Amino acid sequence: VEKLREYIRQPSISTENRGVKECAELTRQYLQAAGCRQTEIVPTEGHPGVWGWLDSGASRTLVVYWMYDVQPVNAEEWQSPPFEARIVEDKRFGANGRILRGRGATNQKGPERAFLNAVESVRAAAGKLPVNLMFVCEGEEELGSPHLHEIVNRYSAVLSKAHGVLMPANSQGMNGSNTVSLGNKGIVYMELEANGAASGGPVSAEIHGSNKAIADSPSWRLVQALAGMTDPSGNRILVEGVTAKVRRPTPAERDVYETFLQHYDENGVKRQLGLERFVGNADKREVLRRTWFEPTLNIDGMWAGYTGPGVKTILPHKANVKIDFRLVPDQSAAEVAALVRAHLDKHGFADIKINFWNGYDWSQTDPSSPIVQMVVRTGARQGVQTRVALRNAGSAPMYLFTRNLKLPVVAWGLGHGSGAHSKDEYMLIEGAAPMKGLADAEKGFADLLYAFAAE
Amino acid sequence: VEKLREYIRQPSISTENRGVKECAELTRQYLQAAGCRQTEIVPTEGHPGVWGWLDSGASRTLVVYWMYDVQPVNAEEWQSPPFEARIVEDKRFGANGRILRGRGATNQKGPERAFLNAVESVRAAAGKLPVNLMFVCEGEEELGSPHLHEIVNRYSAVLSKAHGVLMPANSQGMNGSNTVSLGNKGIVYMELEANGAASGGPVSAEIHGSNKAIADSPSWRLVQALAGMTDPSGNRILVEGVTAKVRRPTPAERDVYETFLQHYDENGVKRQLGLERFVGNADKREVLRRTWFEPTLNIDGMWAGYTGPGVKTILPHKANVKIDFRLVPDQSAAEVAALVRAHLDKHGFADIKINFWNGYDWSQTDPSSPIVQMVVRTGARQGVQTRVALRNAGSAPMYLFTRNLKLPVVAWGLGHGSGAHSKDEYMLIEGAAPMKGLADAEKGFADLLYAFAAE
Repeated sequence: VEKLREYIRQPSISTENRGVKECAELTRQYLQAAGCRQTEIVPTEGHPGVWGWLDSGASRTLVVYWMYDVQPVNAEEWQSPPFEARIVEDKRFGANGRILRGRGATNQKGPERAFLNAVESVRAAAGKLPVNLMFVCEGEEELGSPHLHEIVNRYSAVLSKAHGVLMPANSQGMNGSNTVSLGNKGIVYMELEANGAASGGPVSAEIHGSNKAIADSPSWRLVQALAGMTDPSGNRILVEGVTAKVRRPTPAERDVYETFLQHYDENGVKRQLGLERFVGNADKREVLRRTWFEPTLNIDGMWAGYTGPGVKTILPHKANVKIDFRLVPDQSAAEVAALVRAHLDKHGFADIKINFWNGYDWSQTDPSSPIVQMVVRTGARQGVQTRVALRNAGSAPMYLFTRNLKLPVVAWGLGHGSGAHSKDEYMLIEGAAPMKGLADAEKGFADLLYAFAAE
Repeated sequence: VEKLREYIRQPSISTENRGVKECAELTRQYLQAAGCRQTEIVPTEGHPGVWGWLDSGASRTLVVYWMYDVQPVNAEEWQSPPFEARIVEDKRFGANGRILRGRGATNQKGPERAFLNAVESVRAAAGKLPVNLMFVCEGEEELGSPHLHEIVNRYSAVLSKAHGVLMPANSQGMNGSNTVSLGNKGIVYMELEANGAASGGPVSAEIHGSNKAIADSPSWRLVQALAGMTDPSGNRILVEGVTAKVRRPTPAERDVYETFLQHYDENGVKRQLGLERFVGNADKREVLRRTWFEPTLNIDGMWAGYTGPGVKTILPHKANVKIDFRLVPDQSAAEVAALVRAHLDKHGFADIKINFWNGYDWSQTDPSSPIVQMVVRTGARQGVQTRVALRNAGSAPMYLFTRNLKLPVVAWGLGHGSGAHSKDEYMLIEGAAPMKGLADAEKGFADLLYAFAAE
């Protein structure tokens, strides 16, 4: 537990460049202490990566994908300081339920450090690991992994000799259900800006609101440009061409879907996300279909003019919005980005500026890949039924492994956490069933190492 | 000059309740010092008003409408602290050009204090004023004057015996052109909120952006609701019924319009507002028509989710926008407010909450009222051609005088300033022609008092 707390206490907000270098070095030290003979800080055009190679002389090699950066925080919204890593009693998880609250607790430092704890335990108990490990760590996942390809490319010769990739995760939901995820949606993240210089309206500063009779409003430009990108419900994407390459699920994918659906914990999902209903009053069948097989377009933030209390009448000179698309096979991030520009131009919004922040493609491991069933059996041995999820709605740049290196990738772990990208992020440390606490999560990873070795 | 600076140095931001009480008392002291035997702090349901009565035993009485509150500030955007009231050289106004920069310099403390300087000068030189004065001062103009009616009603018996109302103003534009304004647009200011509890979506906190597949987005709700309120240009109001009561200009109003248009300083207006072009590429004829005869719908501010630098992928649980309508005869503020609710309900946005902040009706002084030509002649005597403007696009609650008390109201003064509701607000203190500096502005007010007495 103290190792997890130490890791969380080292802030590593990539967006704000806060503590990133220090956390890279801490990660490298962790890998060294866990038995990697070769460790390196890997310079990139952005934040540095970390590489670690633990060669046990085994025949099988597992790659561990690792992110050491975390999301920004609104500290005042948290019940305890996000980088204090406080241990808190939580009766939701039974009489002696305890959680570790902190930024990165579940996304992703908690399960990552749990994995390393398992490695250290196996080495302490057995002398050496049954597998070789290669750690590929980046500090820019929350930025959309703009330079992970530099790290992967640098070690691609050795990486291509590996047999699979694991992203350690807290894969138990609110009812204890455990999933192994076979892929991620792709992402395109961009900021749109309407400003007076381009779209008419005040060029360099806000003006009195009564001047709407005289001046165009960049805020209205942005609202109208955005509005044309979805239907009135905000749930169907109308950007021309964006859904054209969405392919139909294969029969194997349909099987995974129907099986997963049988145990889909509708109320658990709602509770975890704080929802009273699903999108557009959909049922779970529709929600899972959207999650796995449909792209989405989300507004992450928008702002213009006066946002304080009470009345201030101004006509702001600029307006901004951050949006993200989540992509499914066979969409292409680069194509979607281009289609947004084309859509805006076609509909008379050539003046809207796009800052393309980042993006990458979806990833997909074949459901019939042996590593998938191996994980399911490992879960079963630990007393947890593990279900196969085709895709995580969240994005991670696993396409570098699945498509570029042809390696199967699984995101998995026992253990439970929530609050990623939100306030009061936590990982369960101890509690009554059905969710596993930290010790059992570590045991699951140890078991996985032996299972992977035995394949 | 020092009197102006002293008045500006006393902050009086009504929105933030900053210095308001202190400024009310300072205003009362000013009125007392200027010769009012009766002065009162007038309690209201909101910020207090101030009343002053200077009875000279004259036959004619002029009411002075006075606001002592100012707009909020983004201090870091200013070239000098907004409440320092710094005197700054400004070569735009000639070799020895000097301005007074500060919040309230032109809206409205500068010209108000200039008027009082004139009153004190006349009394010092002539022993007494040629007119009686009644000062009606409020500290909530920037909030939409929600309680001015309480102040006016309290003194309506004496006010109704007056002969006209003056709002002291810096009425010279960038080319020195001087206007007397005969009315104001009305206003309806409201905040719209979409939140997850009402519109579906996360109820109490933001969630990870990938959950757009599962959850409705209040941000999209707000964007779509807003978009339906205007055409794609953002310049034509589509809220049903809002424009129904807009009446056609009378022949007398058309005359004022055509005359004013002949001298409309197109480039001066653009320069003053920082515009490269007019709304929708309109010409000056169209712009003046919109300013005087058309209602507008403006976005004052909007906000949702993450507004910091770089990437953060969240689905915010609420989204807000502040909007204002500006109203013309014969629209009604109360009706427009109700029409917005009806429009949202009709188009499926009953979940959007409206916080109705404030509003009041338009005002209009008859162009043929004698006080209008009196002001024009006063300007001429001071060497400044004064043009009659039917309406100021900005809002002020003059309807309490024009419609309730049947008094003609003029907003006028020599002198020049800009930056109201924006950064670096200023009033010209001294400079080469064509704009008058402070001394000449005071002289203009003194002349006006005698002209008003002689009618």
